[in-house]
Amino acid sequence: MRAELQRIAGSHTPLPYTGALGLPALREAIAGFYQSAHGLSISPERVVVTAGASAALLLLTAALVDPGDEVLVGDPSYPCNRQFLSGFGADVRLVPTDASSRFQLDLSAVQRHWSTRTSGLMIATPSNPTGTSVPRAELAAICDWAHAHGAWRIVDEIYLNLSDVDAASGQPAQTALAFDPGACVINSFSKYFGMTGWRLGWAVVPDELVPAMERLAQNYYICASSPAQMAALACFTPESIAVCEARKQEFAERRALVLQGLEDIGLPVPVRPDGAFYVYIDVSGTGLDAMRFCERALQEAHVALTPGHDFGSCGAAKHVRLSYAASQSDLREGLARLKRFVATV
Amino acid sequence: MRAELQRIAGSHTPLPYTGALGLPALREAIAGFYQSAHGLSISPERVVVTAGASAALLLLTAALVDPGDEVLVGDPSYPCNRQFLSGFGADVRLVPTDASSRFQLDLSAVQRHWSTRTSGLMIATPSNPTGTSVPRAELAAICDWAHAHGAWRIVDEIYLNLSDVDAASGQPAQTALAFDPGACVINSFSKYFGMTGWRLGWAVVPDELVPAMERLAQNYYICASSPAQMAALACFTPESIAVCEARKQEFAERRALVLQGLEDIGLPVPVRPDGAFYVYIDVSGTGLDAMRFCERALQEAHVALTPGHDFGSCGAAKHVRLSYAASQSDLREGLARLKRFVATV
Repeated sequence: MRAELQRIAGSHTPLPYTGALGLPALREAIAGFYQSAHGLSISPERVVVTAGASAALLLLTAALVDPGDEVLVGDPSYPCNRQFLSGFGADVRLVPTDASSRFQLDLSAVQRHWSTRTSGLMIATPSNPTGTSVPRAELAAICDWAHAHGAWRIVDEIYLNLSDVDAASGQPAQTALAFDPGACVINSFSKYFGMTGWRLGWAVVPDELVPAMERLAQNYYICASSPAQMAALACFTPESIAVCEARKQEFAERRALVLQGLEDIGLPVPVRPDGAFYVYIDVSGTGLDAMRFCERALQEAHVALTPGHDFGSCGAAKHVRLSYAASQSDLREGLARLKRFVATV
Repeated sequence: MRAELQRIAGSHTPLPYTGALGLPALREAIAGFYQSAHGLSISPERVVVTAGASAALLLLTAALVDPGDEVLVGDPSYPCNRQFLSGFGADVRLVPTDASSRFQLDLSAVQRHWSTRTSGLMIATPSNPTGTSVPRAELAAICDWAHAHGAWRIVDEIYLNLSDVDAASGQPAQTALAFDPGACVINSFSKYFGMTGWRLGWAVVPDELVPAMERLAQNYYICASSPAQMAALACFTPESIAVCEARKQEFAERRALVLQGLEDIGLPVPVRPDGAFYVYIDVSGTGLDAMRFCERALQEAHVALTPGHDFGSCGAAKHVRLSYAASQSDLREGLARLKRFVATV
């Protein structure tokens, strides 16, 4: 790491471009993180540092999608991800999900929606907006099925290190790479590491995909931000990891606080979230459509929530997303206002 | 600007996302730069801060290109730019150019290659690899023609502020916005401002395109790097501009040094460059193909040049690009080595 910094400091430009795949020292540090956090040995050669997780999706979809390919994506899901697929001509198949599968794809749904044109699937676990993960055994089964049918798997793990335990097994949350070495996983420095505005992420891809990722990065944005990459080298010290783990613990406390508060209000949470910083709430009992609920909560209680409509169409009108990326005191105040608001509905 | 910094410092996250279009203070500063550098009044509302000029191209091509659209691009030209067009399904028409049009599109070539399917054109001025600009009157005529035929104009001006005078008129180099307010221009903090590794750029677009640019940025990368945007606020002080102008003068001195050196060697430069930091050299007199010339110069003289093949196919085998983004002493040494090498060919 020191040699890397000295090399950069000695160059003509104080902060020149890095290689398209990222600073070698950062790729090594990320690979080391898979070892320390997940007990997994990943070659640094497979790590692609990207301009945010967004750019990891950009490169992966550019590399994997041909016009007309069908791609399976769960509904509800983070809306931006599917835009990369559509942008490169994919036919995005939104697969309806519900509480019975934790608002995530399961093997049965994947099999039912599979066609001869299906070329891949995209899963985010834990998910935005629901904060729920695909159970490990289920994700392994889905990936196995897709692999056996020649389809690629993009697994968005930007909230993985903010999830606690696997819902089914009680084991620590695990990356898809643990059971599907051929999966393409993406991750971010914005969530667990808290470098939100720095726009830095990464992908781990199969060896054979690395050259395409490098050429695409060279053409699409040259490299991720050099100062952001240099700053990110500091993420992997024991001191930084201790700070990140404390933040993760804080998120767990906020989640408990929010779930208790919602129970007091009488707003059901169909699936208890296990990660990220979202709770997906069923507001149908209030008699209000989710969009109307959010509009009125904002206007009458000054509480900002996001209607299910932003994330798809399946069950959208019944659900709203609450983000607990806010202080406990703000969350308490928000919940108190929400309670008064719901009482007036 | 102070209020902007205080607002950010007071937020929960030290460096959160900015709005998708960029920090308001930075959009205002960029608009002000068009006034001070080009005497042009541009509304800050039309300025879109992007994650490098690359992302400006990404957003613009996503907004403007439909599959099957024909787009005219000069050959030679920077190869990455046309990949954005191809990525969104455009049919890129590489228009051969030569020294008679300064290796740039001219109105006559545009008219000859126009078809009913032509939806736009992309011009970089000054150009990488040639360092030559489209004369102002010619560019105005091209833009007029395209506008009259309902086609969009993307003008890549990342080297504009490193160009000296218009080749035909002797007037200061001018942005296309001065004569085509409906053009989409892109620019960068990497060249004139020297923030190379920070990955920050901008676009100025017509009012009616701003909402699409905002939605695309939200979906494709949320926002440009927050620390890069905050750092860039410092670019527009008189002290910073003085530093940038001194660097521009330094580039002019290097260009003169390189052109003199090449004349001494006997390597012709078909069109004297007027900007950027490139010289496009005709090596056909050596009897070597450009690719072979570059390979041998690298291996035998340890001088790195780029073969024309990297930029297109028209005249590619005859030309090599020299970059003078290096110190004058390194350039003198490189030219001395090149002279000895050419003498042995």
